[in-house]
Amino acid sequence: MEQDEKLLKSTINNSKTGFSHGDEFHGELLANFSSNVWFGANHNQLYAHLFKKMNAIRRYPEADSGSLRNMLAERLNISANELLLTNGSAEGIYMLAQAYRGKRSLIVSPTFSEYERACRVNEHEVLTCTASDIVNAIKREQPDLVWICTPNNPDGKVLDAGYIEALMAHFQQVHFVLDLSFREYSLLKQPEESLIQRYSNVYILYSFTKRYGIPGLRIGYLCSCNLNISKLFHYVIPWSVNVLAAETLKFLLNESEDNFRLPEWLVERNRLMSMINQIPNLQCHESDTPFFLVTLSEGKSADLKSFLLERKILVRDASTFSDGKKQQLRLLTLTPEKNNLLIEKLKEWSLLISL
Amino acid sequence: MEQDEKLLKSTINNSKTGFSHGDEFHGELLANFSSNVWFGANHNQLYAHLFKKMNAIRRYPEADSGSLRNMLAERLNISANELLLTNGSAEGIYMLAQAYRGKRSLIVSPTFSEYERACRVNEHEVLTCTASDIVNAIKREQPDLVWICTPNNPDGKVLDAGYIEALMAHFQQVHFVLDLSFREYSLLKQPEESLIQRYSNVYILYSFTKRYGIPGLRIGYLCSCNLNISKLFHYVIPWSVNVLAAETLKFLLNESEDNFRLPEWLVERNRLMSMINQIPNLQCHESDTPFFLVTLSEGKSADLKSFLLERKILVRDASTFSDGKKQQLRLLTLTPEKNNLLIEKLKEWSLLISL
Repeated sequence: MEQDEKLLKSTINNSKTGFSHGDEFHGELLANFSSNVWFGANHNQLYAHLFKKMNAIRRYPEADSGSLRNMLAERLNISANELLLTNGSAEGIYMLAQAYRGKRSLIVSPTFSEYERACRVNEHEVLTCTASDIVNAIKREQPDLVWICTPNNPDGKVLDAGYIEALMAHFQQVHFVLDLSFREYSLLKQPEESLIQRYSNVYILYSFTKRYGIPGLRIGYLCSCNLNISKLFHYVIPWSVNVLAAETLKFLLNESEDNFRLPEWLVERNRLMSMINQIPNLQCHESDTPFFLVTLSEGKSADLKSFLLERKILVRDASTFSDGKKQQLRLLTLTPEKNNLLIEKLKEWSLLISL
Repeated sequence: MEQDEKLLKSTINNSKTGFSHGDEFHGELLANFSSNVWFGANHNQLYAHLFKKMNAIRRYPEADSGSLRNMLAERLNISANELLLTNGSAEGIYMLAQAYRGKRSLIVSPTFSEYERACRVNEHEVLTCTASDIVNAIKREQPDLVWICTPNNPDGKVLDAGYIEALMAHFQQVHFVLDLSFREYSLLKQPEESLIQRYSNVYILYSFTKRYGIPGLRIGYLCSCNLNISKLFHYVIPWSVNVLAAETLKFLLNESEDNFRLPEWLVERNRLMSMINQIPNLQCHESDTPFFLVTLSEGKSADLKSFLLERKILVRDASTFSDGKKQQLRLLTLTPEKNNLLIEKLKEWSLLISL
């Protein structure tokens, strides 16, 4: 235990940047509820494919990922010049923030911290609002850009696709950035790429990390109308997409089916949530995805995280999303066995804290 | 031939960005003299290592590449907080240009085009000077930043390491960016990382692409004094180094020896140069590296490039480095067989053009 704690502390202390995706612990764990990545992906065929394609590392990537862009554009039913491949969605976020340098950004919060960081690096005026207050906030704050993550991290809530489209139609002077990286995590209707052909004031971000379980490879995209994308080319850093990431995407685009089954995942989430809700001091929040927030009515989420880490279980302390105002965890639903293990430990903690 | 030409043209036309490293043709070639990458690297063990480490793609990269930074810092005999891992040296170039946004940059030219592009994207005032005029240019132009590539691309010339250090010592208000990506390509003394511990006005860029023959993987570094690096962290895009690139670097740092033999490569370069110099209309320029410039006294370098491409030989048209003022090729020395093939075709061309 002490060693795990030390490892964790040194990991956190070494991270000068303070970036976090919940997956910061690289020791031996029994269960990792802290990341939002689909855990069940079977990558054996991908590994074999990459091994076959290894010679690609001897050549430069295409500077603008041309052939891969064509392939992906076809799949998304858009044109290649409405699309940019990025080194993870992070590169897309920073590129947009750079292109709108010094503008007013409204971030629908709480959400993924990189939108705000990217905006601050590029000297935006940063404003925030809740999902229920977007219309008023736009009227009041007159932002240039509105950042929306849907389904949202950390709460897993989907903003209605029709509502988002109505926002774009109504506020045509405002540019909307939609991060759809979790779109396959909800059964609800999601905004689609065809939006970019009806509205010139929308950017869509996507990352293959979550749904495909490949956070280490860094591949995502950004799409918008041709004019917006051609302006963004000004900010592109050449050769940013590694050839093995590119080969991975080619493989995934050709794969007919895999083992991702959202309905089953959500059924297990419901079971996990109802078990947690039976534990004193813990209350789950409604979510549209397999990850969700849990509020503690007693104790600190950081302490609960430490308690679980001593038992080799990693969870995400989500109090960081509210600057510590809310004592919350973010949990990703894992396998029934791992979920049962978590429940057992949460019950122990609940008992301890009530003594 | 027509098909090759079409492919080439479509490659160039599709490249809206206009980035170029000389390696833009991905068809079947007999010989590729156009890139600057060590062609002889044997990567079989690396491939096996990467295959073993494939599971790493299921985890996020460390946001700040912590453990790899420690490992590399130890090798470079500097501290980890004097070092940043980057997604190729390109990311380092753009990060520096962003950190010095709006400043005056003096670029020692002709050289790699990305320094100028990165400066312009970040609204620098861009000035250029030749390698022999640096001192006067600094006095005259009072730049904030001076960009020096040594050995230089495209001409393979080394700027004396003692001279560079004297510049830093004398012009302490100026920051020097040294791109040492080709440093293993010359037998001459090169600037070393220890410079950053004696001078706070120097940044060193390096890419593993060239010497290690891995342009597809994108891994490089940037080092400077602790204070400079901690300021640059403000601009870091998280998770920019792909885990397979990171694993590759770990492998390379543990490799005791490989088949890179510069002296032999330079001997063959001398042979290639002397054969070219015997061909009417062609004159090689002195170089400290296995790549060098060739000036055409008649004809256009673009036409010679097309002529060679029809024969499935790719060379770099280096007239782009002088905005077309000089008709030049840049050639990388390849194997004796390939070099002989090139000589044969250059003789044909020379005969044709003199008819």
